Amino acid sequence: MRLNSKDTELRERARQVIPGGMYGHESVAMLPADFPQYFSRAEGAYLWDYDGNRYIDYMCAYGPNLLGYRHATIEAAAQAQAQHGDTMTGPSEAMVVLAENFVSMIDHADWAMFCKNGSDATSMAMVTARAYKDRRKILVAKGTYHGASPWNSPGLKGITAEDRAHIIYFDYDDLDSAREAFRKADGDVAGVFATPFRHEVFADQFLPSKEYAVGLRALCDEADALLIIDEIRTGFRLSRDCSWSIHGVKPDLSAWGKVLGNGYPISALLGAEKARTAASSIYVTGSFWFSAVPMAAAVATLHEIRTTDYLERTVAAAEALRAGIASQAEACGIAIRQTGPAQMPLILFEDDADMRKGSFWTGTAARLGVYLHPYHNMFLSAAVTPEDVEQTLAVTNEAFTLLKKSLPTLPPQTNQILAQRLQMRRSPS
Amino acid sequence: MRLNSKDTELRERARQVIPGGMYGHESVAMLPADFPQYFSRAEGAYLWDYDGNRYIDYMCAYGPNLLGYRHATIEAAAQAQAQHGDTMTGPSEAMVVLAENFVSMIDHADWAMFCKNGSDATSMAMVTARAYKDRRKILVAKGTYHGASPWNSPGLKGITAEDRAHIIYFDYDDLDSAREAFRKADGDVAGVFATPFRHEVFADQFLPSKEYAVGLRALCDEADALLIIDEIRTGFRLSRDCSWSIHGVKPDLSAWGKVLGNGYPISALLGAEKARTAASSIYVTGSFWFSAVPMAAAVATLHEIRTTDYLERTVAAAEALRAGIASQAEACGIAIRQTGPAQMPLILFEDDADMRKGSFWTGTAARLGVYLHPYHNMFLSAAVTPEDVEQTLAVTNEAFTLLKKSLPTLPPQTNQILAQRLQMRRSPS
Repeated sequence: MRLNSKDTELRERARQVIPGGMYGHESVAMLPADFPQYFSRAEGAYLWDYDGNRYIDYMCAYGPNLLGYRHATIEAAAQAQAQHGDTMTGPSEAMVVLAENFVSMIDHADWAMFCKNGSDATSMAMVTARAYKDRRKILVAKGTYHGASPWNSPGLKGITAEDRAHIIYFDYDDLDSAREAFRKADGDVAGVFATPFRHEVFADQFLPSKEYAVGLRALCDEADALLIIDEIRTGFRLSRDCSWSIHGVKPDLSAWGKVLGNGYPISALLGAEKARTAASSIYVTGSFWFSAVPMAAAVATLHEIRTTDYLERTVAAAEALRAGIASQAEACGIAIRQTGPAQMPLILFEDDADMRKGSFWTGTAARLGVYLHPYHNMFLSAAVTPEDVEQTLAVTNEAFTLLKKSLPTLPPQTNQILAQRLQMRRSPS
Repeated sequence: MRLNSKDTELRERARQVIPGGMYGHESVAMLPADFPQYFSRAEGAYLWDYDGNRYIDYMCAYGPNLLGYRHATIEAAAQAQAQHGDTMTGPSEAMVVLAENFVSMIDHADWAMFCKNGSDATSMAMVTARAYKDRRKILVAKGTYHGASPWNSPGLKGITAEDRAHIIYFDYDDLDSAREAFRKADGDVAGVFATPFRHEVFADQFLPSKEYAVGLRALCDEADALLIIDEIRTGFRLSRDCSWSIHGVKPDLSAWGKVLGNGYPISALLGAEKARTAASSIYVTGSFWFSAVPMAAAVATLHEIRTTDYLERTVAAAEALRAGIASQAEACGIAIRQTGPAQMPLILFEDDADMRKGSFWTGTAARLGVYLHPYHNMFLSAAVTPEDVEQTLAVTNEAFTLLKKSLPTLPPQTNQILAQRLQMRRSPS
């Protein structure tokens, strides 16, 4: 029998001392009750909750886990640096080595600046773009996620209109809309944020057209505005260079995070020569931005990225998983949509407005030891083996079978917070 | 003979791949040439540069080092957690324990939220205050430092007027000025930022009057606005509770960082019950905010704070250092001003508008193995022993002697960046 008394007890204690019991992207408030909130252990592709249940994890800490949790090479590099020092009165040599190595790997980049949060990197990109020609307007595609600062947070509580006074929104993958935004800005465009592919919650993922990527580059060039690619979520999961290198498009700035230290806290802004003076003119800093251990971990992570087949192995496992799930769904006669790159998959059910099917299916999988997400894009790490995929498929098969049996009597969405959120999405006021 | 060829080489390499060679608060661009930029090792109260020189460090990584670098107890706690997991798909139990322990130690606090940068905590405080009664204005004392985000960064390049549209500035330690700011806001005050004591660069530090602290609390209560104390720099260096507990003043929110994990990257927002609903209504998050290792380090740090005499030992060492330096200066006939709490000291020279004396004195000390800062408040850790103080005083004595000898022929400030900055301060346009 599966126990979850320890997780429940932790959630009750947390409710006393943490607003809402939990906050931010790792809150399970909208997930089925079978998902644990807390984890006692992580190793390779697995997580364990406090009740001793093991999960094959397809969230990778919402991205940071690229090579596997507690990857031996990365841990050894971090340990070695920790023996010498971490947060000191200045950086260590690792900062220089990291900047050199990172810049040498990313075609468009001539310089690097390091920070902690993804939001630090995107905010630095915005401020750098504004400093470049002393302009103000920042173009952002509607619905894209670039962080949780006042200027870009998806939540609007506590946010003022002025926080976004100079953000102009346009439609993703729509060059006419981007052109219109440039016109509206009337010569005042500082920079344009680009998301390599569309990875919105609750919605099918999709890759933009090559014309869109090339067109945004051209619009920026015409206006002498900076093209900023946000690689926080996508970095090193599609390519060993910027994601739009497949289209031959080089940005002026790129924001990186999550995977950079394989779980150690570090993010970065990379830039082209033409943005160097602007970047050196802004004032940005943080108490732990120069800490040596995450930089040593990042040096080791970049080395693994350059020298191993981590990406090819990840994609192979991801494609096997996607193919297996597709045929199981078909065999059951349950229509699903698997979108986005296989290694950053999203699985949504057809005719599932309140997500009762998706919640049932992922909740069942969680109960059986596979952590899939019902509405947020997932991530595969290089630690996922063919055996893990096989075990996962055994679980998803059982989940499909149970879903099929339950379908005729499946109750509406039982998670009230999720139900409300989906209701709001369907009828925006 | 002292060598600094390795540090010079690292700086030259950095100049290629990092804008300006370095950025942020740990840049040595305005320090005398004797200060190293990079550190190879940290232990207890000491730092080593890449040329093998040891420094008794009075900067503590600009704050984070409270108990001593690589403190055995904290390292053991962090190591133990690292064996299980760090950045995972959810937090570990350490998050709950940390929130419980922290809240139990800080009188005003009923809940905690964790983040990475100090700026994360102050920005969360701002957004929470705005969410509290759906108001917009944030009162900030002129010249105080609350982070490096667009709304509060001391640098203005790349910042728009709208980023600060709802910030109202008033004079520190001046209740009439605060009252005037409330009047100007016309019922729209969300929150007021309070700095426990004034710790501005280049200027004498000072503690505000009790009347000011009590008066700000009363103004906030009258307006139902939130009083926010920024403890990022001061936390656990003056008291084991909020710094204004000496005045009997409880804030509604307090922002913490730097020392919380003794160097591990973590910051926090604490709040009173009345702000809980507001805090749970905002959307804030970060890729590494729920990582377990810094939380385990923070649990251990708070335990040391509660159960040891770290603070009393630090203050005793700091007072011995201050007394020794005072009598050396007097013996030399060189007038200095030592301001702020002894454990967060600032030492400025009289009649030193271009800081030629301060630069000479701290530069000499650095060359002799003591890392003092010429214009930023310093920090003492609990690792500083009476012997360290004695060694330090031998060095400062030599620095005073050399300064006295050099005074008649001391050239103007040779660091052009610092000279320019000081010039700008003297003649604000």
